[in-house]
Amino acid sequence: MPAASTASVLHQVPIELGDRSYPISIGTGLLDEPATWAGAPPAAHALIVTNTTVAPLYAARLQKALAGRHKAIHVVALPDGEAHKDWQTLNLIFDALLENASDRKTVLYALGGGVVGDMTGFAAASYMRGIPFVQVPTTLLAQVDSSVGGKTAINHPLGKNMIGAFYQPRLVVCDLDTLGTLPAREFSAGLAEVIKYGPIADMPLLDWLESNIDRLVARETAALAHAVRRSCEIKAWVVGQDEREAGLRAILNFGHTFGHAIESGLGYGQWLHGEAVGCGMVMALHLSQRLGLVGMDFVERVTALLRKARLPVVGPALGADRYLELMRVDKKAEAGEIKFVVIDRPGSAAVRAAPDALVREVIAHCCRPS
Amino acid sequence: MPAASTASVLHQVPIELGDRSYPISIGTGLLDEPATWAGAPPAAHALIVTNTTVAPLYAARLQKALAGRHKAIHVVALPDGEAHKDWQTLNLIFDALLENASDRKTVLYALGGGVVGDMTGFAAASYMRGIPFVQVPTTLLAQVDSSVGGKTAINHPLGKNMIGAFYQPRLVVCDLDTLGTLPAREFSAGLAEVIKYGPIADMPLLDWLESNIDRLVARETAALAHAVRRSCEIKAWVVGQDEREAGLRAILNFGHTFGHAIESGLGYGQWLHGEAVGCGMVMALHLSQRLGLVGMDFVERVTALLRKARLPVVGPALGADRYLELMRVDKKAEAGEIKFVVIDRPGSAAVRAAPDALVREVIAHCCRPS
Repeated sequence: MPAASTASVLHQVPIELGDRSYPISIGTGLLDEPATWAGAPPAAHALIVTNTTVAPLYAARLQKALAGRHKAIHVVALPDGEAHKDWQTLNLIFDALLENASDRKTVLYALGGGVVGDMTGFAAASYMRGIPFVQVPTTLLAQVDSSVGGKTAINHPLGKNMIGAFYQPRLVVCDLDTLGTLPAREFSAGLAEVIKYGPIADMPLLDWLESNIDRLVARETAALAHAVRRSCEIKAWVVGQDEREAGLRAILNFGHTFGHAIESGLGYGQWLHGEAVGCGMVMALHLSQRLGLVGMDFVERVTALLRKARLPVVGPALGADRYLELMRVDKKAEAGEIKFVVIDRPGSAAVRAAPDALVREVIAHCCRPS
Repeated sequence: MPAASTASVLHQVPIELGDRSYPISIGTGLLDEPATWAGAPPAAHALIVTNTTVAPLYAARLQKALAGRHKAIHVVALPDGEAHKDWQTLNLIFDALLENASDRKTVLYALGGGVVGDMTGFAAASYMRGIPFVQVPTTLLAQVDSSVGGKTAINHPLGKNMIGAFYQPRLVVCDLDTLGTLPAREFSAGLAEVIKYGPIADMPLLDWLESNIDRLVARETAALAHAVRRSCEIKAWVVGQDEREAGLRAILNFGHTFGHAIESGLGYGQWLHGEAVGCGMVMALHLSQRLGLVGMDFVERVTALLRKARLPVVGPALGADRYLELMRVDKKAEAGEIKFVVIDRPGSAAVRAAPDALVREVIAHCCRPS
């Protein structure tokens, strides 16, 4: 694991979205370095939103690094986990903002993983109809996924990420040192989203991952820096063409249709989001193969890589009926027809419907028997 | 009151906001006429959001008029009133959307007053990060205010309209016939927002209102049509220059800083929003006069018009400390400094701070003794 180091920006990835453009800084020792935050919006008030796991590790350090930028910096620590990505928890952010008489210039800092980022982003989008926010992702998943794209949301009891907004941060800071404290299971879950970018968009990345998966699992700084950078660049390229998911952007949901069904069917928090997406990719690859789009060799190649990343590749026993029912409320579905992200050739993805019978075959093949 | 009539579009007001532009239709008999809805977005599913007061009057009629446009049209009736403009009630809309497996193309119809419009708009902004919605305002307040501008929100226990989004409808239909069923107090509350446009932007409108206030109070169709049209045009002119309230748009909040304090201080629902704004305008006019911006004759002229519109012009006895405390959490406040919308000359408004001592004088002069 990387030791604490002097600050070093290894990569800068610009996200080009017109007047909503922002930079991503990737490096080591960034959290404690006041210069890191020079690009954050000026404001008298700031609120660091984090969770009870991350707060004791990093909240005071971020608060100290920001001390020269904001007169008052408060911290709110949310309960940790996807199970708390709901209105009640979101309201803790609004309560903290209002109790501190926060105004329209107050800056929110999202310090934590994807759940903290999604909730802080939606709070920033909604508080007084929009205040600025900065992402400080401390998990691999958040660094390679939620740091680009401006998707924010909370869950509804009847569906994941059903309530949210498209809302861009002003700055994203990925301090690779924070990945050192990540539990192994969460680290692997992040790798699932890195691996995703290969089959859908970038075969050279897939090649690189196959050669460097052991360095990644060992959390070598240079390997991490490359993986985070390429993931952000690919996602930025897709999002830049389709910010509001009218078309192309949907390919980023590769593995997510089956994955959301796994998460929702087991109850949020049983499988991590990245674990469900990794297994969902295996299922979506098998569907692609049965649709005649890719060969079984490609399916097995990606599956082997996921296994080396220490991810589960066999789905839970929900039963085909339940899988189908859960997928029909997916946001991509239209008038009850499920839309799958499939690989139409290695390095390229497309959205399409599939016959129920074929989907049932995939579930029977890829999941534990119910 | 206007009787049910054959459909007649009296005015069309285009709202020009680039790719978020939309038209407002103002007329009679529009609700029941299928042709009215030809400009609504195409979709298999629609959900009419209304409240328990409006539902028995108009929901079935709208449902019937839309029958040719959408395959499935559901209705959800929210509890009526500002006191219910909260997350719990908003969630009834999300529940209805998810229970009916609504997708990203589902159209929401906001059938009711400002509260229904604000909540439906925020639900549309947030459901799956944004679905289309149509405004069908049935109160004068909603027709002249919330039909233009795209401000949507719910209240937080610590502040009004604190959680929301800027989100534009695709179409607004103002059927003047629906104003016939409006209770007198609510009708007067709507007149407060019509009168507002005079002092801040349009002295000819103020002249016209002084000459026609009796026709308006009698709800004559031609007078209503003119008042709704001019209000929408003026608001559209302001919003077109400043959609996200970076500057000019704040003048539309004339009367709202004091008004929100009245509403919040008494508990939402005691005074109607328009009543509080009307009285807030009297207070803001007195503040403008004490700042040396307008003469007492102008203050008295607007106050007399508000009285003729049957609106309260004396504030409740909250006490100056409480007024000031409530106004410091207003969205326009910055770092605890209250920003007031003042009239800097008849027909023109500006935003500025004022010494606490002067504000206390205004409260002492304009409100019942505490």
